[in-house]
Amino acid sequence: MSQLKQAQTSPLKRFRELTGQIKQYEEILGVVYWDMRTGAPRKGIEMRSEAVGALSAETFKLSTSAEMGELLAQLSEPAQKEQLDDINRRLVEETAKEYERNRKIPPELYREYVVLTSQAESAWEEAKENNDFPGFVPYLEKIIAINRQFIELWGVKTTPYDTLLDMYEPGLTTVELDRLFGELRARLVPLAEQIANSKHRPDTTFLQGTFDKEAQKKFSKLILKDMGYDFEAGRLDESVHPFATGLSTGDVRITTRYLLHDVTSALFGTIHEGGHALYEQNITPELNGTPLSTGTSMGIHESQSRLWENMIGRSLGFWQRYLPDLQACFPGQLDEVSAEDFYRGINVVEPSLIRIEADELTYNLHIMIRYEIEKMLFNDNLSPRDLPAVWNRKYQEALGITPSNDAEGVLQDVHWSGGAFGYFPSYSLGNMYAAQMMVIARQKITTLDQQVASGMLLPLKEWLTEQVYQHGKLLQPGEIIERISGKSLESSHLCDYLENKYREIYHLE
Amino acid sequence: MSQLKQAQTSPLKRFRELTGQIKQYEEILGVVYWDMRTGAPRKGIEMRSEAVGALSAETFKLSTSAEMGELLAQLSEPAQKEQLDDINRRLVEETAKEYERNRKIPPELYREYVVLTSQAESAWEEAKENNDFPGFVPYLEKIIAINRQFIELWGVKTTPYDTLLDMYEPGLTTVELDRLFGELRARLVPLAEQIANSKHRPDTTFLQGTFDKEAQKKFSKLILKDMGYDFEAGRLDESVHPFATGLSTGDVRITTRYLLHDVTSALFGTIHEGGHALYEQNITPELNGTPLSTGTSMGIHESQSRLWENMIGRSLGFWQRYLPDLQACFPGQLDEVSAEDFYRGINVVEPSLIRIEADELTYNLHIMIRYEIEKMLFNDNLSPRDLPAVWNRKYQEALGITPSNDAEGVLQDVHWSGGAFGYFPSYSLGNMYAAQMMVIARQKITTLDQQVASGMLLPLKEWLTEQVYQHGKLLQPGEIIERISGKSLESSHLCDYLENKYREIYHLE
Repeated sequence: MSQLKQAQTSPLKRFRELTGQIKQYEEILGVVYWDMRTGAPRKGIEMRSEAVGALSAETFKLSTSAEMGELLAQLSEPAQKEQLDDINRRLVEETAKEYERNRKIPPELYREYVVLTSQAESAWEEAKENNDFPGFVPYLEKIIAINRQFIELWGVKTTPYDTLLDMYEPGLTTVELDRLFGELRARLVPLAEQIANSKHRPDTTFLQGTFDKEAQKKFSKLILKDMGYDFEAGRLDESVHPFATGLSTGDVRITTRYLLHDVTSALFGTIHEGGHALYEQNITPELNGTPLSTGTSMGIHESQSRLWENMIGRSLGFWQRYLPDLQACFPGQLDEVSAEDFYRGINVVEPSLIRIEADELTYNLHIMIRYEIEKMLFNDNLSPRDLPAVWNRKYQEALGITPSNDAEGVLQDVHWSGGAFGYFPSYSLGNMYAAQMMVIARQKITTLDQQVASGMLLPLKEWLTEQVYQHGKLLQPGEIIERISGKSLESSHLCDYLENKYREIYHLE
Repeated sequence: MSQLKQAQTSPLKRFRELTGQIKQYEEILGVVYWDMRTGAPRKGIEMRSEAVGALSAETFKLSTSAEMGELLAQLSEPAQKEQLDDINRRLVEETAKEYERNRKIPPELYREYVVLTSQAESAWEEAKENNDFPGFVPYLEKIIAINRQFIELWGVKTTPYDTLLDMYEPGLTTVELDRLFGELRARLVPLAEQIANSKHRPDTTFLQGTFDKEAQKKFSKLILKDMGYDFEAGRLDESVHPFATGLSTGDVRITTRYLLHDVTSALFGTIHEGGHALYEQNITPELNGTPLSTGTSMGIHESQSRLWENMIGRSLGFWQRYLPDLQACFPGQLDEVSAEDFYRGINVVEPSLIRIEADELTYNLHIMIRYEIEKMLFNDNLSPRDLPAVWNRKYQEALGITPSNDAEGVLQDVHWSGGAFGYFPSYSLGNMYAAQMMVIARQKITTLDQQVASGMLLPLKEWLTEQVYQHGKLLQPGEIIERISGKSLESSHLCDYLENKYREIYHLE
């Protein structure tokens, strides 16, 4: 009898198979999404969206199946759970959470949503290209309507929008976010005002010109290589909206976009996505093929992109080392610029319309605008049709400027076309996490700044791998920051960092 | 009661859903295969292969499920079948054939095979690059061993190799192929000898030089456009081994490879794959999302690639029209060449080592060598380890030359790494089909040659769409050629065509 039992597949083994299969389907879907964003032919999109819908629906079915429910129930029993190792325990917890969330959604509704968002991304691209917000409204309305249904099914936490926030940053609430953003605003708005009144605006004229695309690509690759991005486990392509996607630790892809008249766009975009990619490439192979082999939250993910983009990529030391390389890529175009001037030029603070091109300081204001609008959409029933008016008014209020068209206004970001409401705050959370991490990094790697100034970026990458990357989803975001700094997330480190940086650049008191 | 019955899904509806889902999964797998061949990162291949194996296994499971068996049984009943329209009837027949074939294979064996061939293609690429046949042998041995198992399971038809042939060209046998190839050999070998003895060898010196890759790409795109290839329903990329893949009629992709010192390789490679692509892009939308939305056999598929590549792309009229465009792409490199000289130069007949670069005449000898070797592998138990020796001996016998290494010998083709034993004959079948079709095309489009000479390629494309492309798998290969020419496939048209062409070029009696 006991022999017979042994011959049967153990619940753990079957559970691992099932979660492995789900992860495999997600990897395949990831390839198809990457393809759709990097040049899939227009006329194939409609059928491809249906195919993606079918496979997503199957994946969804597996993750909400009766079998999965039974396995989770068995493995969650105290006696069973006790016997699990750390990885399997986290795997059961994480899968159970997904299961609880997903099984509340009718499969047909889920499939409809996948097809919709898949088509909506192409519609958004077209709308942005043609500055046609009304053409995008029907998609947005449907996406929001289905998200409302999801929220109802999952259950409203304090406010409907709180339910969405929790998906990207487990445990995060509007109360907490209002507090953190309030603290940021209290210190950053006066800082921005001081800067606006400063007479020491950095010169940026040298950033004007036409910058050869191939040379931009070459420089981007050079920096990625020095950051430790593994090109044998990834590739760099182009897309309308830059992104990074971790298909497996052996295949983590980055895209960027090259602007002929703006050398900084692709440059910092690439470093940003490179930060995301370092995270995904360096998750421990022990987690391969499991749903834990990914970033632990969007906030922590963005902390890595923003850390590399800003705290490294926009630092003086970095340009002391890399400006000569950049100059060599564009002979005759940047020869007269010093590292100090370049550093000051790329750190000019200025109200601007495009989030991904904003300076480090006003960037957080872009995020707060989106956060407020998303709250209005879900908590105050703002109609999508009214988005451009609200968007433009908020930009005028917060930044003193108004988009001249929707392509550089409400249509600029891809997120909403994919239904990612609640994601935007991750960027500012990321800034805060990153600043808090960097305080400790400097204590642990005492010569960090000298290292960066000589192009030795790998020790920082190794430290971040040890502290953050390797753990994947084994640790919660709160555990990560707690283990690094001994404290939960605080806004003060970001404020300190920005104040110190800009006081020096703008000669403030 | 009858109302209740109506509320249930009808067998036909459910059958269409199920075959639709299988087609959708195949489309998604097609994207992943395309990706693996056009630049997927090396370190991700192993896990990707496993993921592909998982989804292929699921697809296989659907196609061999008990539900599928029941649906097919129901829909194949005379009373039911009578009520089906043409499309649904063919759909049932074709699916039943696949079902009968697939259900004989144990799912675990199938999955193992998919993972194996997926990994083998990368192994082949590496082996070819490093001229390392022994490194590829273990993969080849396993692939052949599993194919032997498949043959046993399916049942041996006359000889084991016949069972494989039937997969690519329904109904084709070694007896028939021995006859057709015998007829070809009887007329083409003497022709090749006459040519070898001719004193009128065309000048080819102008083909030497270095040809800018971007200019090659530009010219390839120009020709594809004129052929009627729809770039909004496809894209052109690079890969080690050129291929075309029809993911849906709205997404049919081509790859090519650009050789810096050979302007003809990418050129004719692109036209070849372009011919495949025209077929897949022009299947009637009525068949969208069904397994009938593809070419009817590999022989008919190759007839289209070979027709466009050779009978159009290597014709005098074509170069009367396009040589000036080619000259404009490579200023100063081809200025002195006349259309007549160019035509003769690209049609030089010469024993060569690489199949895909062979002239139209000796090309068929390359195919016969592969056909004989494949027969030896499956009917005479030739060991894969002995392949290089056999390959090299056969090249010496048939073409009087011996490869200097395996990369330009037995490792040159991708086919075996994917387990496509029995595919190669399709190319020569394609040549024969194409020649037979062109005889009729010239009767129906009386000014065809003048049209080609003025770059009007679309009328031919339209005629082929009407006769071949639109039907997808609705018609069998035999029906296609019968409807066009009133006869079954004959070798004489290809022989006539080649004799006429080369007699003129080589001034033969």
